[in-house]
Amino acid sequence: MTAIEFFNTRASVRNFDPDKHVSDAALDSMLGAATHAPSTGNMQLYSVIVTRDAERRKAIEKLHYNQPAAVGADVLLTFCADVSRFDQWCRQRHAESGLNNAGGKITAIIDATIFAQQFVTIAEQQGLGCCYLGTVTYNLDGFIKALELPKGVIPLFTVAVGYPAAIGAPSDRLPLQAIVHREKYNTPSAAAIDSYYAEKEQLEESHKFIAENNLTTLAQVYAHVRYPRELNESLGDDMMRLLAE
Amino acid sequence: MTAIEFFNTRASVRNFDPDKHVSDAALDSMLGAATHAPSTGNMQLYSVIVTRDAERRKAIEKLHYNQPAAVGADVLLTFCADVSRFDQWCRQRHAESGLNNAGGKITAIIDATIFAQQFVTIAEQQGLGCCYLGTVTYNLDGFIKALELPKGVIPLFTVAVGYPAAIGAPSDRLPLQAIVHREKYNTPSAAAIDSYYAEKEQLEESHKFIAENNLTTLAQVYAHVRYPRELNESLGDDMMRLLAE
Repeated sequence: MTAIEFFNTRASVRNFDPDKHVSDAALDSMLGAATHAPSTGNMQLYSVIVTRDAERRKAIEKLHYNQPAAVGADVLLTFCADVSRFDQWCRQRHAESGLNNAGGKITAIIDATIFAQQFVTIAEQQGLGCCYLGTVTYNLDGFIKALELPKGVIPLFTVAVGYPAAIGAPSDRLPLQAIVHREKYNTPSAAAIDSYYAEKEQLEESHKFIAENNLTTLAQVYAHVRYPRELNESLGDDMMRLLAE
Repeated sequence: MTAIEFFNTRASVRNFDPDKHVSDAALDSMLGAATHAPSTGNMQLYSVIVTRDAERRKAIEKLHYNQPAAVGADVLLTFCADVSRFDQWCRQRHAESGLNNAGGKITAIIDATIFAQQFVTIAEQQGLGCCYLGTVTYNLDGFIKALELPKGVIPLFTVAVGYPAAIGAPSDRLPLQAIVHREKYNTPSAAAIDSYYAEKEQLEESHKFIAENNLTTLAQVYAHVRYPRELNESLGDDMMRLLAE
């Protein structure tokens, strides 16, 4: 399989084999390789918390609403933007850190996400399955408390990791012309939007979601049920506070 | 070479072969594969602007301070967080988008960064070289104007892409114990910070940076010269405004 074929057919994994385990040594080898991903000025403004201990694990699963991917994974990794380590280094070296502010933390969010995605790719290329759990952002303060994160460390998402019980089919994607713009942003026409979302709207699963929720369009399922305004405004308020503090 | 070895020895590329080119077809194949990276609810809240045209290219290079990686690359890709396409779909489908706020845009920043890093990995595994140019954040409004980005689209970084003129040696990284925390965040002791940064501080390059800037520590080079507070505060102000608007 070529690299292009590998990436075209990857899929997130939500069902894990309960009998196969990822050792700490294997995990460290993959995380170590992922630290070679690019980061801003090679500052590596990120940390990752590994959750294995039964009691901590239950608390983290609960914060993730006990969703099957969280409960069934072999190990949970919560990736965090982290300007705290850099700040501490500066304090010990007669330097005044310039990163303990919103700009520095936005940079750290990007660094941490690059690191996480490099880890996910490495894990997938080693035969493991992964699933990002965005539910961290539903309760940032809950994760900060449960993982004992100091100021300057913002949890972003958990990656559930384990050996796949079954490999899912790749899910649909928007056509490339929806994503790629030549030279300048090309705001799509109404007809272009219709064509970009046509495949997704025609999926059997989409019709099921619309019917289950007594709605009339798939966009309403996303905007009113799955990712409603209140949820995003709450995340926005929490994140703006953590960025500014 | 195993996947682990590949990722352990990768390096960003800043010097490109001027005689080798990446075709639009090859670029699209790699970007298409990268869209299969995970995204929040499969919403794909990102766009990428491809810069090739000579005049646009000069403008983007200038915004990147004409740094060699920008000027020498075969093609420049500017990755953007994008809630605008989703919002437009919602408007056409009798739905009120919940994403046109700070929470939705933070989610889009994470989606766009995952997509970008998947692209970078694919390009590197195809023998290309890449370099993230974080200088986008030095002048967000300049990039918004140059790339004609509408409201709801935030440029994050440019990735310079091309065939490497020379493969650089992998740069130093913090030891894994600085990054990985077991069960809870372990705030490092002063001695731990000393040991984490020892390798970096001992590099010949670090001594050169300190001397050139008439400073006494490497942390001062980072905090006072390369990533000073004013720069990050300016980014923070711009980003907070773009997140909130």
